[in-house]
Amino acid sequence: MSSAPQPMRQRVEDYIRKLQDEIVLSLENIDPNAPKFKRDSWLRPQGGSGQSCVFAMPSTTTDDSDSNIASHRHESVLEKAGVNISIVHGTLPPPAIKQMRADHSSLPLPEDVPGGLPFFAAGISLVIHPRNPNAPTAHANYRYFEITETNNSSSSGGSGSTPKVLAWWFGGGADLTPSYLIEEDAVHFHKTLKDACAPFGSQLYPTFKKWCDEYFYLPHRGETRGVGGLFFDDLSELAHVRLPSPASYTSDIGSIDKGGPAAEKLRPETQEEIFEFIQSVGNAFVPSYVPIVQKRTTMSYTPHQRRWQLIRRGRYVEFNLVYDRGTKFGLMTPGARVESILMSLPETARWEYMCELGEDQDTEEGRLMGVLKNPRDWL
Amino acid sequence: MSSAPQPMRQRVEDYIRKLQDEIVLSLENIDPNAPKFKRDSWLRPQGGSGQSCVFAMPSTTTDDSDSNIASHRHESVLEKAGVNISIVHGTLPPPAIKQMRADHSSLPLPEDVPGGLPFFAAGISLVIHPRNPNAPTAHANYRYFEITETNNSSSSGGSGSTPKVLAWWFGGGADLTPSYLIEEDAVHFHKTLKDACAPFGSQLYPTFKKWCDEYFYLPHRGETRGVGGLFFDDLSELAHVRLPSPASYTSDIGSIDKGGPAAEKLRPETQEEIFEFIQSVGNAFVPSYVPIVQKRTTMSYTPHQRRWQLIRRGRYVEFNLVYDRGTKFGLMTPGARVESILMSLPETARWEYMCELGEDQDTEEGRLMGVLKNPRDWL
Repeated sequence: MSSAPQPMRQRVEDYIRKLQDEIVLSLENIDPNAPKFKRDSWLRPQGGSGQSCVFAMPSTTTDDSDSNIASHRHESVLEKAGVNISIVHGTLPPPAIKQMRADHSSLPLPEDVPGGLPFFAAGISLVIHPRNPNAPTAHANYRYFEITETNNSSSSGGSGSTPKVLAWWFGGGADLTPSYLIEEDAVHFHKTLKDACAPFGSQLYPTFKKWCDEYFYLPHRGETRGVGGLFFDDLSELAHVRLPSPASYTSDIGSIDKGGPAAEKLRPETQEEIFEFIQSVGNAFVPSYVPIVQKRTTMSYTPHQRRWQLIRRGRYVEFNLVYDRGTKFGLMTPGARVESILMSLPETARWEYMCELGEDQDTEEGRLMGVLKNPRDWL
Repeated sequence: MSSAPQPMRQRVEDYIRKLQDEIVLSLENIDPNAPKFKRDSWLRPQGGSGQSCVFAMPSTTTDDSDSNIASHRHESVLEKAGVNISIVHGTLPPPAIKQMRADHSSLPLPEDVPGGLPFFAAGISLVIHPRNPNAPTAHANYRYFEITETNNSSSSGGSGSTPKVLAWWFGGGADLTPSYLIEEDAVHFHKTLKDACAPFGSQLYPTFKKWCDEYFYLPHRGETRGVGGLFFDDLSELAHVRLPSPASYTSDIGSIDKGGPAAEKLRPETQEEIFEFIQSVGNAFVPSYVPIVQKRTTMSYTPHQRRWQLIRRGRYVEFNLVYDRGTKFGLMTPGARVESILMSLPETARWEYMCELGEDQDTEEGRLMGVLKNPRDWL
């Protein structure tokens, strides 16, 4: 109706709501006989709201037939999955501002804003744990962060009057965690993400692919969490520590569809371009992942494979609880919704002392470990 | 043979080796038909050695009958258990010395020892996860830490020439984590520990009981890990932040068996007394815990109870990976033996989104939660 451009925070919120719907529907469509995702809307007392969409099979507590390592009963495609969005706002204390200034030089000195600054954050976060050990776990997360001037007038964080934005950035990524290495799946996942990055700069995929391998790494195990994907943070129109600086653009920046023999585009520069990039990789999640689940869920599997899957899920728990910044930050945040933060954990995980699985390189388990210990270029 | 008194590091090592043997044997005696604990000796490349004694049932990967929530098959009393000792030495860098000076004022200023200082640490650590949901999990840990002058002569850390000790202290404790609250078990556990503390000072049990409730607390869940026990650290002949200072002793310190109408003994003061206290609580582990397992392992249980037990084990994993100082320190230590550090994790753990179990105070699960949210005085 109105021709005035909407503020980015509103556009991001609209986008992640739509993306959540699409992803949940496409996951439900894989398995029409399974229960639907459970949709919970919640309010954060300190400001904001969200919607969690979670899949779980009802627990069978009345018979003796459910199983851990072995059973094929109750064969839903998914074992546990969550697709969450949250749109929150509040006040960022000066120490947090100090930390953020390293990557966001447009922020004021923390000592000049002793009362902190208002922030706004909107994001989508998802983790899918399929039941079949041949079907990989997937994770994705895309988020927008904004810091504004203190608004001495009426509403703070509402969509009425819009305070001046001091800094904004996007972050996110997607990664794949198989229990068994099926190379064509890793290639498909990476290729789909690379293609989604390509129109926005040639440096995005290689930079964010490397960052992903570095981020999802368990030092105490000497292995990555999975076969990687994309990971990035602090993406704005400012210089970025891992990307070529905007000043290095040689021509024709900001117009991704003019084509022609101009110099290679290295990265998105404007907010508009970056948001388009986010939508492109966000929209790539379903085509990057759902076909893999559809294909692998029909494969038969053994109790041995199930056991290995649960051990790998133990490593997933280790990464998320010991290293993941989002989880750690979330658990420390007063008023955070713990159920949403920890929905990333698998339904079941297993720890065996001195487990021999994965040690022999000539086994299927050992082939996965080879890749986790030495990340590979898939494309 | 020799009448020269042995150095404390040797006496502690001898004690924890004996204690490990006794605990493992008494656990094996509960269940004569189960496999024995697996004993692994290991060497730390950076200096030191240890022995892990671990119980696990062989994984059944060939049939379809093993189960997660429900099965009563393969009914060993224990599901997973580890009793480890380690005796390690190395060099403590100046930042670590700086941190330790807060509680150990006898240490030199870190700037005066730019090359760090030699340390020695010997400890026993155990976690027992029984299979029956009515039998609680138990954890105990007793350790001795010593910092010495840099030895410019021959051997470092060996038992030959003994360098001058700059600081030493003991730490440890024991705590009980039931899935179902059986009050007489909590009372028995606490009473056995209190009795073991009593000869060494009236302030030990109340101080260390409170410390235990504070330490084994999951802020993001607003609950303790279990029903507590003892927890302490930095116990030496110096002033202690939680105990009455040695100067407040009114008479007759250092002789615990003189008795008489002297003023009440508040805490152990000499190294000899503290080591006796450590042995007293260490020796109390078997009588505090084994009778409980023997009694509860004969109770029948339902799949519903097994499901709740696995959810509680998920909380155990959360505590150990997110908060436990020993685990975090261990995982960050180069050359640490990850298998020994993470043997504390249960064989299986479970995470359900928005699990309703425990919310209704009138259920057995809710009764446990009431105690975890409001720690109780058991004696």
